[in-house]
Amino acid sequence: MEKERFIVDLNRIREMSPLVHNITNYVVMNNTANALLALGASPVMAHSIEEVADMASIASALVINIGTLEPAWVDSMILAARTAAGKGIPVVFDPVGAGATPYRSAVCKRIMEECRLSVIRGNASEIMALLNVSAVTKGVDSTVSSESALDSAMMLAKAAGAVVVISGAVDYITDGTSVETVTLGSPMMSRVTGMGCTATAITGAFAAVNSNYMEASVHAMTAMGLAGSIAAECSAGPGSLQVNFLDTLYALDAAMIEKRLQA
Amino acid sequence: MEKERFIVDLNRIREMSPLVHNITNYVVMNNTANALLALGASPVMAHSIEEVADMASIASALVINIGTLEPAWVDSMILAARTAAGKGIPVVFDPVGAGATPYRSAVCKRIMEECRLSVIRGNASEIMALLNVSAVTKGVDSTVSSESALDSAMMLAKAAGAVVVISGAVDYITDGTSVETVTLGSPMMSRVTGMGCTATAITGAFAAVNSNYMEASVHAMTAMGLAGSIAAECSAGPGSLQVNFLDTLYALDAAMIEKRLQA
Amino acid sequence: MEKERFIVDLNRIREMSPLVHNITNYVVMNNTANALLALGASPVMAHSIEEVADMASIASALVINIGTLEPAWVDSMILAARTAAGKGIPVVFDPVGAGATPYRSAVCKRIMEECRLSVIRGNASEIMALLNVSAVTKGVDSTVSSESALDSAMMLAKAAGAVVVISGAVDYITDGTSVETVTLGSPMMSRVTGMGCTATAITGAFAAVNSNYMEASVHAMTAMGLAGSIAAECSAGPGSLQVNFLDTLYALDAAMIEKRLQA
Repeated sequence: MEKERFIVDLNRIREMSPLVHNITNYVVMNNTANALLALGASPVMAHSIEEVADMASIASALVINIGTLEPAWVDSMILAARTAAGKGIPVVFDPVGAGATPYRSAVCKRIMEECRLSVIRGNASEIMALLNVSAVTKGVDSTVSSESALDSAMMLAKAAGAVVVISGAVDYITDGTSVETVTLGSPMMSRVTGMGCTATAITGAFAAVNSNYMEASVHAMTAMGLAGSIAAECSAGPGSLQVNFLDTLYALDAAMIEKRLQA
Repeated sequence: MEKERFIVDLNRIREMSPLVHNITNYVVMNNTANALLALGASPVMAHSIEEVADMASIASALVINIGTLEPAWVDSMILAARTAAGKGIPVVFDPVGAGATPYRSAVCKRIMEECRLSVIRGNASEIMALLNVSAVTKGVDSTVSSESALDSAMMLAKAAGAVVVISGAVDYITDGTSVETVTLGSPMMSRVTGMGCTATAITGAFAAVNSNYMEASVHAMTAMGLAGSIAAECSAGPGSLQVNFLDTLYALDAAMIEKRLQA
Repeated sequence: MEKERFIVDLNRIREMSPLVHNITNYVVMNNTANALLALGASPVMAHSIEEVADMASIASALVINIGTLEPAWVDSMILAARTAAGKGIPVVFDPVGAGATPYRSAVCKRIMEECRLSVIRGNASEIMALLNVSAVTKGVDSTVSSESALDSAMMLAKAAGAVVVISGAVDYITDGTSVETVTLGSPMMSRVTGMGCTATAITGAFAAVNSNYMEASVHAMTAMGLAGSIAAECSAGPGSLQVNFLDTLYALDAAMIEKRLQA
């Protein structure tokens, strides 16, 4: 990754403050809205079938996340995603808990079939489940390593025509041909709910300002990892990590980036 | 504003701990419940049509907020608002994102027609959208200055028979005839999700203890602004601002108020 | 309570990371997920009738909480609870606001009749309301002391065949015959929304690793009380208390426990 291009995208988000429309889960709405605001983007959460097409149409990116899915919300996600894709607005998908229940798998299958996705971000179990590879998902946490899911991610990327991101100790980003990795962050991040969902949300912000979705995804995972690792250094536990993460995302600048990405 | 009367209202909230019934959006429920608790009020969130009339009836104020609206929730808001108004319980309305989508505008129109509101609080774009003044709302953030919406706010206040509050760098509070301003707070507050919704929620607490809704609204915006500006001084970013804001709201006392409102 | 057995349970949670399935209210989902993660458990929130039976089946405990109830959610809670009970998975019930509205009372009655519960945790008003004892619940906060509800709790425990926990300045835990008390925590905890719901959620984690639900409940209330009182000592208000609470829950170890429970 070129540091300079990462900084350009970060500055673009802060200057343009792109509207990121989220149809996401109840648990993380507050987190992801705050992370988008701290980064410089403008979040909106709206899920009603009566307005999602209109809202997606004025957005610069759409994020759909099935964490606390139910049929009406899935219909809204699909309508919004089809509307966004039809207008060239990037659509980022987070298949939370894919594989954990048959319903969740069926919904993922439907979203994959009916929507043209720009980026798919999940943990290793979820990415494998999207390909019907047998991986045991325990609730919403991964039970396999990111590396073991890389082949699946590459196949998925080719099949979906999307960039696929596997989050973990090492993040893998692939368009089906090339693979990039990001090795940042802190193990303590897995003790804060919604860190994965936050990664997906800010991928929306980066995709809003950079139509090279491979690069946008690498930049998003870099921003997450930098903010997470810097924040973890001054955090006694997951409570303060969450606070410091937002402060760091807000403060992230060229000097911090140069210093951190040098090593 | 008379400092002494502000302190009286603040003490009343802490002594009486008024029950504030909120039918609000998913993103901010946690924030607004915590802000009401920190201030000394007693929040309850309940949205089911099966119980909102009963809950509103035992409350000292009702807050309705359309942030993540959908038809069933709107029906509940209207039933609760009509019940509350019928019993003389103040109803505070937050038209989040008014003007952003046709559905949102239609719902605002219906609420304005069917409910007798005590206070309406929004940003400049939202207040103008309520009057069908052409203002471009970008998602849920304002695109116009508070000052430029003041005429709309005064017309709206007269038409609705309600106090109207425009939040911004300067807050304007009007009953259609007189106008008061509050110039407190910090720009960093706009980087924390739900600060506007929190202002609306605590307006409910002040309206619960002071039936002069013009004064109650000025006091609510003063409490927000004081807590926000004091908190911002020791906050590295929006993560810590949110934490310090709650701590300050909890600690706000006559000495802090005297000192801050002197300048 | 034997300290050694408490430490054993705490370590078990961290080693086994039990999946705790929550069907809970919108206000506290984020808090309870974070508390479970900080403690070492693995939370999942899923409420759709299409998947709750499947999700409950793979969980090690189920937590149902009626804070922001509506008919579809209640149906899901009952299906999940019946599924879990049928498989010997502990079910923990939080009757938030029981008695505040007729609908809430009717739902509690239905849950009590149709589900086999392992633990019921509420404040004094809620526990009395479950027995139709006339106690005035003001919204979701208790209006009576824990002690005055102890007789009701014992009767309720016998009638339901469940452990009943009354939270308050003193927590009472009873199986209908014996009673244990926990006197820890801080008054400031009542100024943070969802602390009661968090107690219920982590009771799920302890019940997942200890089938003696009486002991598991005492351990859960001890963990809450320890983390709350240690956190309160370095918290300026409810904002920082919430952060420090999670950090302390994460850091809680044998040395801290020995030191604190000695006095």
